[in-house]
Amino acid sequence: MGLRYLTAGESHGPALSGIIDGLPAGIEIAQSDFTRLAEKRWAGYGRGKRKTIEDDKVEILSGIVEGKTIGSPVGLLIRNKDYSSRKGYMHPFKQNREAGKITVPLPGHADLAGAMKFGLDDCRMIRERASARETAMRTALSVPARNMLLELGIDFTCLVEAIGGISAEIDYSLEPARIKELTEAGSAAFLTPDAEVCLKWEKIIDEAREQKRSLGGTGCVIFWNLPFGLGSHTQHDEKLDAILAARIMSLPSVKGVEFGRALALSKSQAGAADKISFSPERGIVRETN
Amino acid sequence: MGLRYLTAGESHGPALSGIIDGLPAGIEIAQSDFTRLAEKRWAGYGRGKRKTIEDDKVEILSGIVEGKTIGSPVGLLIRNKDYSSRKGYMHPFKQNREAGKITVPLPGHADLAGAMKFGLDDCRMIRERASARETAMRTALSVPARNMLLELGIDFTCLVEAIGGISAEIDYSLEPARIKELTEAGSAAFLTPDAEVCLKWEKIIDEAREQKRSLGGTGCVIFWNLPFGLGSHTQHDEKLDAILAARIMSLPSVKGVEFGRALALSKSQAGAADKISFSPERGIVRETN
Amino acid sequence: MGLRYLTAGESHGPALSGIIDGLPAGIEIAQSDFTRLAEKRWAGYGRGKRKTIEDDKVEILSGIVEGKTIGSPVGLLIRNKDYSSRKGYMHPFKQNREAGKITVPLPGHADLAGAMKFGLDDCRMIRERASARETAMRTALSVPARNMLLELGIDFTCLVEAIGGISAEIDYSLEPARIKELTEAGSAAFLTPDAEVCLKWEKIIDEAREQKRSLGGTGCVIFWNLPFGLGSHTQHDEKLDAILAARIMSLPSVKGVEFGRALALSKSQAGAADKISFSPERGIVRETN
Amino acid sequence: MGLRYLTAGESHGPALSGIIDGLPAGIEIAQSDFTRLAEKRWAGYGRGKRKTIEDDKVEILSGIVEGKTIGSPVGLLIRNKDYSSRKGYMHPFKQNREAGKITVPLPGHADLAGAMKFGLDDCRMIRERASARETAMRTALSVPARNMLLELGIDFTCLVEAIGGISAEIDYSLEPARIKELTEAGSAAFLTPDAEVCLKWEKIIDEAREQKRSLGGTGCVIFWNLPFGLGSHTQHDEKLDAILAARIMSLPSVKGVEFGRALALSKSQAGAADKISFSPERGIVRETN
Repeated sequence: MGLRYLTAGESHGPALSGIIDGLPAGIEIAQSDFTRLAEKRWAGYGRGKRKTIEDDKVEILSGIVEGKTIGSPVGLLIRNKDYSSRKGYMHPFKQNREAGKITVPLPGHADLAGAMKFGLDDCRMIRERASARETAMRTALSVPARNMLLELGIDFTCLVEAIGGISAEIDYSLEPARIKELTEAGSAAFLTPDAEVCLKWEKIIDEAREQKRSLGGTGCVIFWNLPFGLGSHTQHDEKLDAILAARIMSLPSVKGVEFGRALALSKSQAGAADKISFSPERGIVRETN
Repeated sequence: MGLRYLTAGESHGPALSGIIDGLPAGIEIAQSDFTRLAEKRWAGYGRGKRKTIEDDKVEILSGIVEGKTIGSPVGLLIRNKDYSSRKGYMHPFKQNREAGKITVPLPGHADLAGAMKFGLDDCRMIRERASARETAMRTALSVPARNMLLELGIDFTCLVEAIGGISAEIDYSLEPARIKELTEAGSAAFLTPDAEVCLKWEKIIDEAREQKRSLGGTGCVIFWNLPFGLGSHTQHDEKLDAILAARIMSLPSVKGVEFGRALALSKSQAGAADKISFSPERGIVRETN
Repeated sequence: MGLRYLTAGESHGPALSGIIDGLPAGIEIAQSDFTRLAEKRWAGYGRGKRKTIEDDKVEILSGIVEGKTIGSPVGLLIRNKDYSSRKGYMHPFKQNREAGKITVPLPGHADLAGAMKFGLDDCRMIRERASARETAMRTALSVPARNMLLELGIDFTCLVEAIGGISAEIDYSLEPARIKELTEAGSAAFLTPDAEVCLKWEKIIDEAREQKRSLGGTGCVIFWNLPFGLGSHTQHDEKLDAILAARIMSLPSVKGVEFGRALALSKSQAGAADKISFSPERGIVRETN
Repeated sequence: MGLRYLTAGESHGPALSGIIDGLPAGIEIAQSDFTRLAEKRWAGYGRGKRKTIEDDKVEILSGIVEGKTIGSPVGLLIRNKDYSSRKGYMHPFKQNREAGKITVPLPGHADLAGAMKFGLDDCRMIRERASARETAMRTALSVPARNMLLELGIDFTCLVEAIGGISAEIDYSLEPARIKELTEAGSAAFLTPDAEVCLKWEKIIDEAREQKRSLGGTGCVIFWNLPFGLGSHTQHDEKLDAILAARIMSLPSVKGVEFGRALALSKSQAGAADKISFSPERGIVRETN
C-alpha cells in the first residue's frame, strides 16, 4: 500500500501523536535524528521563544527496535509542554472550559468553516487542530522516511527563495548537492544559500511584525538521484505532479505550488520557456507563504 | 472519507497507540467507557492472569474535550505494563536484544512469512506485532464509534455460539434487544445467553489446556435499527458484505465469516434455505476461532 | 497503487464496460483468453440457454497492443446482445419505460434497500445492476491479471465442493497441480474432480428447479507457488485474509468465506483442528452459494 | 466513498472509455450536455482542425436511463475517429507495428520516464496514453458531476487570464455570476471576459506557431454557492486545497496551482497581502500552461 500516515493532536491538548505505516524493516534510526529536525524548526527567524514552550522531545512508542525499523508501524508521541500549566484547558473530561471559549472566528482561517461544519460554538476547538503545531508531528514522522531515502542514495534539500518580494540569489546551475551544502552552511534562521539577503529579510520581518502584518514568501524543494518512473502517466490520480502538489498544499499557509518554475514562466514573455532545459534531477517544487 | 483508523504497537514494546479519524463532533465519551470494554476482555474464561500483566489504562491524547469529541482525530495511548520489567527487551535504541532472539518460527503463525517478507532473522520482531494484543487498541478506538452508533439509535450485541463443537441454545426468534439483555445477564466469562452451556465449555477448555490443544468456536454479531442503504450494490468494493467480511477477518484467529447462517445452509439438504425468512434487522455475521 | 478496477453496466442496458488499472507492460494476451473464460461461464449446468441471449464477445478498447499490455489501463466492452431487441427498455434518453416498471421488490435481494437508498420507485433500476450479469465483465477484466500470475509461475484452480448438502470426494493430499488437472478433465458443467457426484447434483438441481427452490453450495479456490509475504500482519486492512475475504464476498450470492477449512473445524469435536497440518501452498478459500 | 472515476484509452487506439462511480440517482442528463462540452474543446483558438479528426460523439453505455442517472456507475465510450484509417496501428492483436515505432523520446514529456518504467522500447506506447487526448473522456465524465452541482445550486466558471505574459483585464470585484456571463458572451476561442485582449493573443500565438515555440498561460476557476465545510482541517489528506491542487495538477500541461492569488502576492512587496479581503465565495484556483 505504500507509505501512509495519520496524525492527531491539538496545540494545547495533552499530546501530539502520529503513526506511519508501510515502512520496510532495517532502516537505521537514531534518537538524534528526531532532535536535529526539531531544532531546525525552532531556528527559524523570530521563532526563538517557541523553544521555551515546546521541547518537542519525540518518544518512540513502537516500530523501532535496537535502532532499526522492524516493519511494523512506527508510533510517535510528543507531549505538549504547556498542557499542564494551562490547568486542563483542553482536558478530555474536565468541565472547566467556559472561560476560554472563543466565539469570534479569525478571518481567513479554518475557524468559521470548521465550526459550522462540526456544529460547534467555540472556535478554539477548530483552531487547536488547524494550527501549524500539527506539523511538529509530521516532521517527526518524516524521520524514518528520510532515512529510507538516504539509504537508497536519494537526497534532497529545501531552501527559502524569497520573502516579502525580496529574492535570494541562487545559482540553480550548480549541482544540487552543492546547493544543499551552501544552504546548510548559510543562515540557520533562513535556510537559504544567499547569506547577504538575510539581513534584508530580517529587516522587513521586523517591520512587518511591528505593523502586525504578515509576509508572503517562496520556498523550493529539490530531490536528486530519484529513480525513473515514480508516479504514472496512465491515470489522473497517479501523476507525480498531482501527488506532490497535494502533499505540499496540505501544509498550513502554503497557497501555491509550481513545478519547474512554471508560474514565473507563464507570466514571462513568449518564448522564454523554450530556453529552459528541464533536468529530471531538479524537479523543482515551490511553496509560498 | 468516512471513519478510518491506524494502530501501532508491539506486545512488549513501550506502548500501543491508535488514531481514529473522521468522527463528527459532539459524541459524548466517558473515561469509564474505555474501562468497561477493557474489563470485558479480561473477563473471558481462562484469561484471569492477563489482568496482572496488563491494566490497559487508556490515555486520551487528543480529539476529546470536556467529554465530547471535537471533530479532530482521536489519539489514544496504552502503556505496556510489563515493558520496563523486561529491561528494555524491545527498547527502540538499546543494543541488548541478542539474548531474546527467536529463530524458530511458530507453525501456522505470521512468523515465517513475516520474517521472510521483511528480511529479518528474529521472529520476535514479527510475533510482537502479529499478536492479538493489538486488538486492545482496536477495542479502545471503537469507543467513540460505538457511542456514535448508540446516539443514532443503532444498537448491537455479540455473543458466543459454539466452542469445540458444543453449541449454545440461542433463540434467534427473540427481539435482538432481548438477546442482548440475556447475553449481558449471562456469564461474563463466555458472553452467551445460554447459561447452561458454560459448564460444558469450561470443562472442554480445561481439558484442551491440559492437553495443550486449541479449540475452534463460533461467534455472532447482531446489529439492529440500521438505516437502509449502507454499502452499495453498484460496485464490487462497496458491497456491505464485502466490507464487513474484511473487517471481521482482520481479527487474529478469525478464519471464516458467514452472513445469515449461510455456511450452515450451504451444507444442509436442498430447500432448507428457502424456509428461512431473512430479516434486515438481523443481518448475522459469524466469526470463528 | 497496485491493481484496481471499476465496472459499469446493467443487464439489459447497452453494454457492460470495465477498466483495470495498474498492470505492468508486456503481459501476453490473446483474444481467445477472453473467449475461453466466457465459455466456462456458459458451461455451468443448466445455463445452456444463456448462450442464446449473451455472446459476451469482449472488445478490447485500450491498453493492449500487438497482443501485449502496454502499461496503460485496459478498457473492455461487452455489448448486451438483447439490448436492441428490448426496444430501448434501458435506453439512456428515451421516455418509454413505464410499461416495464417494477414496484414489488424481490425478497432477500438488493431491490428494496437500493430503491430506498437512491430514492427510486422502480426496482428494475436496482436489479439491473445488482444482477450477477456484472460478473461477466469482472471475468473479462481478470484475463490480464491471470496471465500476469501465470507468467510469474503462480498457478491456481477453483472447484465445486458441495451442492445442496451433497459433497464431492476430493483428495486434498494430492499436489494442487494434480487437483487442477482432475478438475479440468472432469465435468465442465460442474468444475469438480469427482465425476461421480455430478449425476447426483444434476438430479437435485433438476428437482429444485421444478420446485422453484434454490440450493446452497460450496466452492474452493487454491493458489500455489505464491511468494512469501503477500499482505501484511502489521495493519488491520493489509491482512491477506481480510483482503481476500472482501474480494470473494463481493460476488453476488456468496454468503460466507472460510480459510483453511475453518468453519468445518469450528463445529467439529475438540482437538480435531490440531490434526490438520496447514500448508502455505494450499491456503484454501471457500465460497458458498 | 464519494465520487471516483477511471479513464482508459490511447489517442489512436480503438476508443476512450471511462467510468464514474458514486453518483446519486435522479440527476437529469441530456445527450446535448456532452456535445456542448466537446464543442467548447474544439472552439479553442488554433484547434479548428481537430474537429476533422475527432468527433467525440459520446456513447452512454450505462448508468443513465430515461435521461436520469440511476445510481449505478456511468460508463461512457468515445470512438477514435481515425483509428480505422490508421490501418490498425494500435490494434490490440495485429503484429504490424514495427513501421511506426518511436525510439527518440520527446524532451520534457513522459516518453523517457514511461518507457524506462515499463521496460518498453517504443515511446509511442507511452505518448499515446500521456496525450491530452485523455481529457476528452474526463470532460465527458464531468457531465453528470456538473449537472449534480447545478441541481444543488452550486455554479462555477473558468476563464483564461493570461497567455505569453499578456494579461486579460478582469474585474474580480464583480459578482461571479456576472463574470461567467461576460466570459460566455466573449470569444469562444479564448474563454475570457476581456474581448480586447483576444487580438493580441491571436497575434502572439500565430507568431509562436510560426517559430515552433510554445507559450505559457494562466487560467482561473471560480466556484460559488459552495456549502461550508468541504474538505477538513483535521488531517493532511482531507484539506480542500490539497485535494483541489491534485485534481488540477493532474491535467497535462498544468505546471502550477495557486489559491486566492497566492503566488502573485508572494512576490509582491511586503504588506500587500493584507489589503486583500478574501471572500469564501471566490476561492480562486489558478492553472497555468
